[in-house]
Amino acid sequence: MLKNQSLKITDIEGEQVADLVCFNLYDKEEYLSSGRTIDYAEKIFFSTGDIFYSNRSNIMFEIIEDHVGKHDFLLAPCSREMFRKTYGHTDPHHGCFGNLCNAFEQFGIKGDQIPVTFNVFMNVSVKSDTGKITVLPPVSKAGDSITIRAEMDLIVGLTACSAGLSNNFSFKPIGFQII
Amino acid sequence: MLKNQSLKITDIEGEQVADLVCFNLYDKEEYLSSGRTIDYAEKIFFSTGDIFYSNRSNIMFEIIEDHVGKHDFLLAPCSREMFRKTYGHTDPHHGCFGNLCNAFEQFGIKGDQIPVTFNVFMNVSVKSDTGKITVLPPVSKAGDSITIRAEMDLIVGLTACSAGLSNNFSFKPIGFQII
Repeated sequence: MLKNQSLKITDIEGEQVADLVCFNLYDKEEYLSSGRTIDYAEKIFFSTGDIFYSNRSNIMFEIIEDHVGKHDFLLAPCSREMFRKTYGHTDPHHGCFGNLCNAFEQFGIKGDQIPVTFNVFMNVSVKSDTGKITVLPPVSKAGDSITIRAEMDLIVGLTACSAGLSNNFSFKPIGFQII
Repeated sequence: MLKNQSLKITDIEGEQVADLVCFNLYDKEEYLSSGRTIDYAEKIFFSTGDIFYSNRSNIMFEIIEDHVGKHDFLLAPCSREMFRKTYGHTDPHHGCFGNLCNAFEQFGIKGDQIPVTFNVFMNVSVKSDTGKITVLPPVSKAGDSITIRAEMDLIVGLTACSAGLSNNFSFKPIGFQII
């Protein structure tokens, strides 16, 4: 996805999360940073007009349209280990992390390089007093979308999420379009 | 810091933050992960008994004593770029990020590999409804401490923080002892 191109992500059936992460196309050691983005935005919920930064404090993309307003940027992508620990699965799916690993392999990006993902449509509530987080069903309805515009040339990874809690225990497709 | 050793971090004068991050001693591609830790703990505030995970979902350390109960795991370490953007400094300090880069260089760990740090004694409040975060003066008083016990052999980086807001605009030393 090149600078000034836009990526529209659509929740086709509703209540479906998609994990997104990106790298500088020309230098894969520069990656999307939750820590820098949250610091500069001074918030953990993001919507239209919000800017996303790399680990080097460069602008990677901006949200230019958002029907939902609730996305998560706290949690790592679901993985085999997460399904074992959190859900007790004995033969776990490789999850968003496995999907991203497979997609990024051709670009020479290893699993260890995948940081905290931007979890589109994921509905995580945080209690102010205790810091307790709760994963709730997404508030996104069928056809809702979010559109981001690249501010540098990027490699973007995007996957529909396969974690039960995050998707109200129903796994559905995610639509995407580069404009 | 070897497995079963403990690290006691003391706020000697009070209201002073320290940024901490660690790597697997034998494989620097395994690092402390905010995203995995928050996911497994189901909370963003950590204290005694809480377990910290690597990007590979292995246990890196546990908090075995904590006088304060308020630490941050959302924000990236302060850096030159952060001081320019957030504080408008024209000749910025290199911050926690610069200190950690300098300390890790001898181990072959580059700045790009430094993830979101565990910001000991840092007091970040989060509003449940808007997701707005606010950096407040630490609640730690002189002599307060936190102790972590290593659950694998680690390279640990620790630095007193040089960001104004985080430390109530007074920069003080941080004590540490390996037990």
